[in-house]
Formats: sequence, structure tokens, C-alpha cells
Amino acid sequence: MTEHTSRHYERELQELKEKILLLGGTVEEMIASAMKSLLSRDAGLARRVIETDPQVDAGELEIDHHCLNLLALRQPAASDLRFIATALKIVTDLERIGDLAVNTAERSIELSKEPPLKPYIDIPRMASAAAEMLHRALDAFVKRDPDEARGVLAADDAVDKLYVQLFRELLTYMIEEPQNVSRALGITFIAKYLERIADHATNIAQMVIFMCEGRDVRHPAAQDLVAREE
Amino acid sequence: MTEHTSRHYERELQELKEKILLLGGTVEEMIASAMKSLLSRDAGLARRVIETDPQVDAGELEIDHHCLNLLALRQPAASDLRFIATALKIVTDLERIGDLAVNTAERSIELSKEPPLKPYIDIPRMASAAAEMLHRALDAFVKRDPDEARGVLAADDAVDKLYVQLFRELLTYMIEEPQNVSRALGITFIAKYLERIADHATNIAQMVIFMCEGRDVRHPAAQDLVAREE
Repeated sequence: MTEHTSRHYERELQELKEKILLLGGTVEEMIASAMKSLLSRDAGLARRVIETDPQVDAGELEIDHHCLNLLALRQPAASDLRFIATALKIVTDLERIGDLAVNTAERSIELSKEPPLKPYIDIPRMASAAAEMLHRALDAFVKRDPDEARGVLAADDAVDKLYVQLFRELLTYMIEEPQNVSRALGITFIAKYLERIADHATNIAQMVIFMCEGRDVRHPAAQDLVAREE
Repeated sequence: MTEHTSRHYERELQELKEKILLLGGTVEEMIASAMKSLLSRDAGLARRVIETDPQVDAGELEIDHHCLNLLALRQPAASDLRFIATALKIVTDLERIGDLAVNTAERSIELSKEPPLKPYIDIPRMASAAAEMLHRALDAFVKRDPDEARGVLAADDAVDKLYVQLFRELLTYMIEEPQNVSRALGITFIAKYLERIADHATNIAQMVIFMCEGRDVRHPAAQDLVAREE
């Protein structure tokens, strides 16, 4: 590789990072706005979240093309190859997080048409925790920092606990009063979307650890299975 | 590439296909068994589905490694590059489908402890449709056949319709009788898992069309956005 090509290549890798962070920023904002729309019963804001979706989809396509071009033209080795393969996978998670923010906004519009069931306490907590996990996972990715990625895995348990707690509470609402059912279900769905956003952030963090260390923390039990077969 | 290396390479590509089909077969079976355990109230069968999960996880790791090796050692060009990049993405969908089959089995165990709420009609229909979509999507992938992949996209609407219809029916159950709530919720969750399995199959089919034609059908609106910016 000449010095000229190598500079080009470095720039293209840098651009890939920037594109991923930009897309990550967009979906983080979508989560925050969907939550704000729920709390302030603002259907207009929720609709703006829904309208952002094509932008996320375009970002996914662009990053896919960028990765394929890098693989085809630069034939990267070892650690860069892993970085680009991880980018290909991460971008799918980002797109699906965008979809989940859209789903949240859709439920928020429905809920804004009925009187509030109860004050929201755990839901915004879950949303901030999930968005924070996503932010850290992407930060760990561009810095290739497995320790930061490990912090994300630890945070996922807290979100899961919030979800289980909230789910039980909402179930009680539904059983006590039939007229609560439709609203409580709407909130249950939102809690589930947020829990899935946290799962996607966890997936990203696991892939970052694999990328950095070659050790796969996604499935410890499976790892043993593969090792035994070798 | 010498003739010898080229034969090696062809064999490695063939192995990649076989590994993907094998993993696909395993998760298809998991869906079928989870459904059977629900219909026959067989908690033992459901537990065996849950125990299959590490095998799926091991399959994912193995295919990831296989793809990275192919990319690093064979530096494939154009259509093979796309094929391998698609494999990297598809395998993540397969692993998540496995997780959804496990979730279905978990709900099936819970439901087996309570008297049946109603005969299952739409749920097994959704499960067969989703498994069939997955099968066709993977077939389209290994044959690099965009027309077969298009058939999968069309089938997704039917699954979505079944889900909406079932969701409304279950909502009525919950509103009419508080003692139905927990069971009806369990069934609602299963319906949602199946709908997500169909979504994953749709994602795979869309990626296959992209792989074959270079045209991205994942996000038509986004495509226009990218085109306008170029």
C-alpha cells in the first residue's frame, strides 16, 4: 500500500466511525423525543420521531455500502477486518433501535388520546438507561475499548429488573380494572421496546469485546461447546 | 489464485452455505417444537427447546469465524464478498430467531400450568407461516435467488394481519374477565414472538435481494433519499 493509498484508507475508516456515531446520535435523539412525547402527551413530537425513520434507514444503507467498498478495495487485514465486519452487524442493530423508537412514538400517540393511567416513573428511567447504554456501546466501538463495553453488559441487568417490576405493576392494573387494560397494555409494550433497545446495546457491546479481544462473550456456554469440538 | 486454492475456496464457500442451512434447520425445528409443546401442554418438550439454545449460539460463533477467515484469507471480490457480508448479517437474525423460539417455549411452560384459555387456531398458523418464510429466505440465500426472496416479503403481510386479529381478540378476553388477563398476556407475547420471527425472515429476504441485485428493497423511501444526496 503506498503512503497515498494508506492515507485514503485511514480517512475512509475514520469516515466509517463518524457515520456510525452520527446514526447512533440520531437514534438516541429519537428515543429521547419519543419519551418526551409520552410524558408531555405531545402527539406532534411523536409524529416527528416517526418521520425521522427514513433518515435512519438511509444511514444504514450508506454504512453498508461504505463497509462493502472498504472490504472490496482495501482488503483490510486482521483487526481492521474485524472492525468493518462489526460495523456491518452494528448498523443493523441501530436501524432496529430506530424502529423501536418509532414503535414507542406510535404507542405514545395512542396513549395521548386517553386520560393518563398513572404518572410515569420507571418508563423514563428505563429510556435513559437504554439510551446511555447505546451511547457507551458505540463509544466503546469507535475507541476499540473492551472495558467500556463491559460496563454496558453490567447495566443491562438493571434495565431487565425495571422491566419485570413494571410489568408486574401493570398486570395488577389490568386485573383490577378492565377499563385500564388497553392503556396498561400500551405502556407494557413501550417498556418492552425499551428493554429491547437495551438488548441491542448489549449485543453491540458484546460484539465490540469480541472485536477487541477475539474472545466471544456473547455466549459463554456455546464457547465451551465450540472449544470441545475443536 | 491457483487451481488448488480455487478448489479450496469453493469448498469453503460451500461449507458456509451448509452451516447456514444447518443452523436454519435447527431454529426451524425449535419453532415447531415450541409450538407443539404449547398445543400439547408438554413442558418437557418446551424445556428441550430451551436446552437447544447453546447449540444455536455455537453455530453463530462458528459461522462468524468462518466468514472472517474467508474474508481475510481469500479476499473475495464482488458477488462473493456480498454473499459473505450477507452471511455475517443473516447469522445474527438466526440466533435471535432461536432466542424467540426459546421465549415461546418459556411462555408455553407457564401456560401449561393453568387451564387452557381457548383452543389455539391462529397461533399455530402464524408459527407455520413464520417457519415457512424462514425456510424460503434461507433457500433464496444459498441459491442466490431474488425471486424466491420476494415471495417471502409478500408472505409477511399475512402474518402481520393474523397478529393484529389475534391481538384484538385477546384484548377482548382480558377486558371481559380479569382472571383471563395473565393467560391472555402469555398468548399475546407468543403471537408477538412469532410476528418477530417473520420479521427476521423478511429481513433475511431483503438482504438476499440486495445481495443479488445490488438494489436495496429494505427501505424504498431511504433509497430515494440517498439517491437525491448523490
